[in-house]
Amino acid sequence: MDSNYAIIVAGGSGSRMQTFLPKQFIKIGSKPVLMHTIERFHQYSPQLHIILVLPSQEIQTWEELCDQYNFTIPVQTVAGGPTRFHSVQNGLSAISAEEGLVAVHDGVRPFVSIETISQSFAVAKEKGCAITMVPLKDSIRRIDPTGNNFSEDRRAFCLVQTPQTFRLSILRQSFAQATDSSRFTDDASVAEAAGYAISLIEGSYRNIKITTPEDLIWAEAVISMQGNN
Amino acid sequence: MDSNYAIIVAGGSGSRMQTFLPKQFIKIGSKPVLMHTIERFHQYSPQLHIILVLPSQEIQTWEELCDQYNFTIPVQTVAGGPTRFHSVQNGLSAISAEEGLVAVHDGVRPFVSIETISQSFAVAKEKGCAITMVPLKDSIRRIDPTGNNFSEDRRAFCLVQTPQTFRLSILRQSFAQATDSSRFTDDASVAEAAGYAISLIEGSYRNIKITTPEDLIWAEAVISMQGNN
Repeated sequence: MDSNYAIIVAGGSGSRMQTFLPKQFIKIGSKPVLMHTIERFHQYSPQLHIILVLPSQEIQTWEELCDQYNFTIPVQTVAGGPTRFHSVQNGLSAISAEEGLVAVHDGVRPFVSIETISQSFAVAKEKGCAITMVPLKDSIRRIDPTGNNFSEDRRAFCLVQTPQTFRLSILRQSFAQATDSSRFTDDASVAEAAGYAISLIEGSYRNIKITTPEDLIWAEAVISMQGNN
Repeated sequence: MDSNYAIIVAGGSGSRMQTFLPKQFIKIGSKPVLMHTIERFHQYSPQLHIILVLPSQEIQTWEELCDQYNFTIPVQTVAGGPTRFHSVQNGLSAISAEEGLVAVHDGVRPFVSIETISQSFAVAKEKGCAITMVPLKDSIRRIDPTGNNFSEDRRAFCLVQTPQTFRLSILRQSFAQATDSSRFTDDASVAEAAGYAISLIEGSYRNIKITTPEDLIWAEAVISMQGNN
């Protein structure tokens, strides 16, 4: 049987959050954001191999937090690189299997549903990849290099989330072929640049990426409503 | 002195909110969403003429709510039309002044800041219009009519909010010239179609449009944090 993997990327700083604590370590409900995220993937499947990519200087803090919160879900910790691209690449290098599926997920998206994770693996198995997205709620404008701006039809766009799940062979080949790593803000664009067609699945507005203080307010409210914090 | 106006458009149903109550009437904190929104504009300037556009079948409910909540900010109520375009048009028809500025604002954006409203009027006075926007936090993909999809640079786009503030003469002429009303999801695109250059101001992620149950969770949390509910 092929193995399934999740690479949880947690490389962010607290800059937009206006805190010194990296946002993945901020506590929501009873524990740090990152523990909620890992729990979702473990709930999807206790057999899933979870690879956690952290900046090297944060690995010790993470280990201390695991002790402090008695967090026992097994994860393989890997040091990140200078950009998200390099961090995912390091996570991928830690996987020795030839075949299988790998979900790449933002460490600060703790509200991903089990259904989304499950659909993501199912569609990636069939089609090679599955990229989670949501339709736009707001109108959108394009800003051109001269600073002029123009309305666009919002129905022609979607916002990309994670998980972004791939056959291992596809993600490996995509990262091996990539040249200008700095232009990739997600893994779908790496695979697209390597010539792969991107298949989309619809996620949920709940699956937010905790980035700003507003997001943290929302996260606390959702956690306390859910009760299972 | 020229007069300033705000047209607050509250035409939404509760469909995406999964409630029967129109979302503008849902209570957050101590009162309905729409009352919070109107209060923000009144706080910006008690001299501002506020025009509230409501579906005709909701006007009586609104008046009953005003009695019930002892809501005394003076607003001129106008019946809406079949689309947002027609509702704004009806609001505009209720203004008899020749000169001045008009801010169009979604009734379900109760967290607009006084600073944003103020900047919106100031920039519109100078440049003819001021459209509130925020940068994208997420990666974005374009979906073409065949269903294929492609990455786009998120820095080349912004999400449009309200207020969208205009010189009265510009908004009037834009609405008078507009032909295919169904394609406009906001007022900036009406003015753009009439040939006006669109100037942008940066708003805040707090200025959300309450659309889904997730938004309502957030709204309740923010209201209770603010204390002034």
